[in-house]
Amino acid sequence: MSIQKLQNHVIVRNERFIELAENLKPHLNETIVEPTAIVEIKSNKEVIHGWKSERIAPASTLAENQYGKGDSVNLDFGDHQVGYLSIKIRPEGSPPDAPLKLKLTIGEMPVEVVEPFENYNGWLSSSWLQEETIYVDVLPTEITLPRRYSFRYVKLEVLDTSPKYRVVFEKVECCAVTSANINDIQTISHQDKELQRMDEISIKTLADCMQDVFEDGPKRDRRLWLGDLRLQALANYETFKNNDLVKRCLFLFAGVPDDKGKVPANVFVAPKLMADDTYLFDYSLFFASTLHDYYFATNDLKTLQELWPTAYKQVEHALERLDENHILKDSADWWSFIDWQDGLNKQTPSQAILIYTTKQVIRLAQELNAPESDLLKVSIEKMENAAKTHLWDEQQQFFISGSDRQVSWASQIWMVLAGVFTKEDNQKLMNHLLKVKPEVGIATPNMYHHLVEALLVSGEKEQAVTELKTYWGGMIQDGADTFWELYDPNNKDFSPYGSHLINSYCHAWSCTPTYLIRKYDL
Amino acid sequence: MSIQKLQNHVIVRNERFIELAENLKPHLNETIVEPTAIVEIKSNKEVIHGWKSERIAPASTLAENQYGKGDSVNLDFGDHQVGYLSIKIRPEGSPPDAPLKLKLTIGEMPVEVVEPFENYNGWLSSSWLQEETIYVDVLPTEITLPRRYSFRYVKLEVLDTSPKYRVVFEKVECCAVTSANINDIQTISHQDKELQRMDEISIKTLADCMQDVFEDGPKRDRRLWLGDLRLQALANYETFKNNDLVKRCLFLFAGVPDDKGKVPANVFVAPKLMADDTYLFDYSLFFASTLHDYYFATNDLKTLQELWPTAYKQVEHALERLDENHILKDSADWWSFIDWQDGLNKQTPSQAILIYTTKQVIRLAQELNAPESDLLKVSIEKMENAAKTHLWDEQQQFFISGSDRQVSWASQIWMVLAGVFTKEDNQKLMNHLLKVKPEVGIATPNMYHHLVEALLVSGEKEQAVTELKTYWGGMIQDGADTFWELYDPNNKDFSPYGSHLINSYCHAWSCTPTYLIRKYDL
Repeated sequence: MSIQKLQNHVIVRNERFIELAENLKPHLNETIVEPTAIVEIKSNKEVIHGWKSERIAPASTLAENQYGKGDSVNLDFGDHQVGYLSIKIRPEGSPPDAPLKLKLTIGEMPVEVVEPFENYNGWLSSSWLQEETIYVDVLPTEITLPRRYSFRYVKLEVLDTSPKYRVVFEKVECCAVTSANINDIQTISHQDKELQRMDEISIKTLADCMQDVFEDGPKRDRRLWLGDLRLQALANYETFKNNDLVKRCLFLFAGVPDDKGKVPANVFVAPKLMADDTYLFDYSLFFASTLHDYYFATNDLKTLQELWPTAYKQVEHALERLDENHILKDSADWWSFIDWQDGLNKQTPSQAILIYTTKQVIRLAQELNAPESDLLKVSIEKMENAAKTHLWDEQQQFFISGSDRQVSWASQIWMVLAGVFTKEDNQKLMNHLLKVKPEVGIATPNMYHHLVEALLVSGEKEQAVTELKTYWGGMIQDGADTFWELYDPNNKDFSPYGSHLINSYCHAWSCTPTYLIRKYDL
Repeated sequence: MSIQKLQNHVIVRNERFIELAENLKPHLNETIVEPTAIVEIKSNKEVIHGWKSERIAPASTLAENQYGKGDSVNLDFGDHQVGYLSIKIRPEGSPPDAPLKLKLTIGEMPVEVVEPFENYNGWLSSSWLQEETIYVDVLPTEITLPRRYSFRYVKLEVLDTSPKYRVVFEKVECCAVTSANINDIQTISHQDKELQRMDEISIKTLADCMQDVFEDGPKRDRRLWLGDLRLQALANYETFKNNDLVKRCLFLFAGVPDDKGKVPANVFVAPKLMADDTYLFDYSLFFASTLHDYYFATNDLKTLQELWPTAYKQVEHALERLDENHILKDSADWWSFIDWQDGLNKQTPSQAILIYTTKQVIRLAQELNAPESDLLKVSIEKMENAAKTHLWDEQQQFFISGSDRQVSWASQIWMVLAGVFTKEDNQKLMNHLLKVKPEVGIATPNMYHHLVEALLVSGEKEQAVTELKTYWGGMIQDGADTFWELYDPNNKDFSPYGSHLINSYCHAWSCTPTYLIRKYDL
C-alpha cells in the first residue's frame, strides 16, 4: 500500500472562502447515553470476527460490583455512539493509598475490546485503536475523558489499585454528539421491514459521521474526504437536509486549492484548515459533482456562482490527461481512488467519472449561462465516442481498462452511470455484468452504492433491491448498528489495512441506502 | 509483607482543627525548569542498578531532531524535580493524518526510564511507576500533563505517528513546585566540602517533599506520615523555618483521631482530609514528639495548648501496653514501625521511644503547668528501671528485645536517645555497638539518622561524621540528587517492596543531614 507525500506542496488559501466556511460551523447536539448492559464477549466461530457479545446483566447493576487488580467489565451502550465518555468512580475499602491505574478499551465491534491491540500489525497507524490508560490520583472522582470516541462497547480494566482498596464504577456515560438534527427527520414506514431497518441504520450512520464537518468515519479518519462528502450529501438531502453543512464543506475544499487550482482529496480542519497532500483524480472531480448535487437540492445560485470557477477548474485539469484519442492516459503511479479492489485498473472507471462529472458541470454551466458549456459538450462527445471505440470490447460485451484489457465491475458500473450508452444498452450491460461476474469485483460499500445506482438508472429496480439486501442486509445480519467502511460477505475479516481491528464500522460512504431507498422509492 | 486494613474504623473529626489546618494551606512556589541534556542510559555494572546516564547532546539541540514510530529520546533535567511537565510538539512532513501515540516514562533514577515497567513485580502498586501513554489528535500542540511527577529523567517514546509525518519536540519543560521558600534559606559555607554538599542535598530533598503538606516522598507515597513529619520538621527548623506548615500538619493529624483519641500513622488530604486505617505505636507517639519540637522551635504556646490533649492521649494509650513489669508487651501482630530491617523485634526500641517521647511530653506539661507531669515522671522512672532490669543483658552489654533476646542496633540506638543511661554509659554502649556490629542492623535512612544522633548525644561526634559520610556520602557517590528512601551500601538493589523501581529516591526521612550538621555544628 503506497501513500502520497508531496515535497513542494503549494496551497493558495482563499481566506474569504475559509471565513465563509467558518461562519457555517455547526452547533453540535449533545445527548447523554448510558450503557444498557454488562456483556461478555465470547468466542464464537459462527459470527463475524469470531466474537459474540452476550448480555450477562443489566448495566444498572454495574455499581453493585467492586473491581480490584486484574478485574474487568465490558459495557454495551446498546447502539453505536460518537462522543465523550465520563466515569464516576468510588473507592471501597481503606482510603486509596496508591493511584488507580485504569485501562479503557473502546470498540465499535466486540472484536475490538477482546483482541489485544498489542498484536495489531496493520499498516495504518495503531494510534487509531481506541484505548486509554489513565492514572487516577484522587478518589472518589468523576472523570470526563477529553478525546472523542466512536463505539458501542467499552471495556474497563483495573490494571492496579493497591491491596487496600477496590473501585466501584458508579456511573459510566457518553455525551453523544452530532450536528445532525435527529428530531427533524421524516421517518418512513416501509412495508419491507428489511428496507425500513436499512433506512434507519443509514440515517444513524450518517448522523454519527455528521460532526464539525461530514467526517468519513468518526473512529477513523475523522476527516473530510471528497468521495465520502459527495455520498453523505446525497443521503443528507433525503433526510436531515442540513444543507449548510454541505455548503461549509464545499467552501473548505475551495479554500485550499493548490497553485494549479486543484482541490485536495481531503482536508484537515484542526488546529486550522489544511489541505492534505493527497490528490485523487476522481475525488477532485467529485467536488464538481457535489456542487452539482448541492445546487439542484438547494437552488443556492449564489454559492454556485462563488464555487463555479473551482468546480470548472477540476474538470479542466482532468481533461488535460486525455491522450490524442480522448482516452485518459493510464500509468502505474496514477492516483485515482475508484475502489480498494486489489489490482483494479483505474483508467476506464476514471474516464467514466470524467464523463459523468463533465455532464454535471455542463448542467451547472447552463444554469449560469456560462460560455464553457459549449466547449465541454464537445469534450463529452469526444470522450464518449472514444470510450465506445477504444474501451468497449464488442466480443466480451464489456468495457475494458488498461493495457491488459481488464474487465472490472467498476468500469461497467461507472460507464452506465456516465450514460455513455442508452438506457436499454445499459440495462443489457448490467444484466451481462451480474451474469458473468467478472473476477475483478467490488471491495467497498462506496462501489456497491454505485452498483445499485447503476442498476436503478438502467431500470433494474428489483436487482437493485436484491443487491442492497445482500450487501447492506448482510451487514445487518452480521450485527451492524451503523454501516461499515468495509464488508465482503465472502471474507468477513477483509481489511485493506492488514487488520479488521482498524476498519471503521461507521463509515460515511456506506450511508447511502437511505438515499437509494428514498430517492428511487424502493 | 502485611498491611493494616481496619473494618470498623471510627474517626471523630475535629472540624475546628481541620479548619485551622485548611487556613494554613501553603502557597506553592513555581519555577520553570528546562532539561539540560539529551542522555543515553547505558548498561554499566560499576554503577548503582547497573545503568549509567551519559550526556550525548545539550538539550537545546532537541528541536533539531525528528521522531517517528519507534524513536525515543531521554531527557535529563540536571537535578531532581517535582512538578508538572509540558511538551510543545510540532509535526514534520505531511499534515498529521493519524493521532500521535506518545509514551512518557518518568524517573528519578536512570534505571526507571530503561527497565520496562511491564516486568515490575513488587508488592506495592504498579500504579506508582511514573508513565503515561497519551494520544494527541491535533498537532501542533502544547500539552501540559495534569499529574505531578517526581523525576530527573524523562523518556519520550513515539509509539506511533503515521508513515506521513514525524514529530519535533520543540520544548519540554517542568513547572517545579514546592511550598519551601528556597531563596529564604541561609546557606552554609562548610570547610568540609562533602558535608557542604550533603547539606545542600538534604535541603533539596526537604524542599521537594514540601508541598501542600510535608510529604514522605513526592514520587511515592506523596503523603503525610508522622514518622517522616517529625524528621522533616527538625530539618525545617534549621533551614526553611516554614513553621506554619508543621503546625498545619499537626492540626491535620489532630483533626482525625479515632474514637479512642489515637492519631493515625498517616493522613490523606485529597479529596478531603482522611485518616488512613494504619496505626503505628511509634508513629502515634511521634505526634507528641513533633509537637514538642515545634513548641521549642516556635514558642507557640497557643498551639501547644490546643494540641496538648491530643499529645497526652498518645502517651496515655502507649502506657496501657506496659505489663506488670513496666515493659511493653510484645506480640507477633504488633504494629510499631521502627525500621524496615528484616526480623527486627520491636519491643525494646518501642520501649525506648515511649521513654523518649514521655520525657518530651513531661517538658511540655511543665510549660503548661499541667498536673499530668508528676504522673508521667513516675512512669518514666518505672519504665527506665524496668528497661535496665529486664532488657539489659549485662553479659553482652547490650539491650535485648523480645523473647528471643534479640540484640539489634535499633534497641541500643533508641535506648541511648531515650537517655536511660548516663552520657558516659551511652558513649560506652555506642562504641560497643560499632565494634560488635550485631547482625540485626539498620535498613533505612530513618534509622541511620537515629544512629548518628545517638552518637552525637553520647559525645561521639567524629564517629557521627564518619557514619554520615559513609551513608549519605555513599548515596552522593552513587549519584543522589536528593536523598533516597532506601540505601544499603552493601546491597544497592535493596528494596523492601520487591523492586528498586518502586523505591522513592527523594524521601523525607533522609533529609536530616542538614539538621544534624547545623544543629550539632558538625
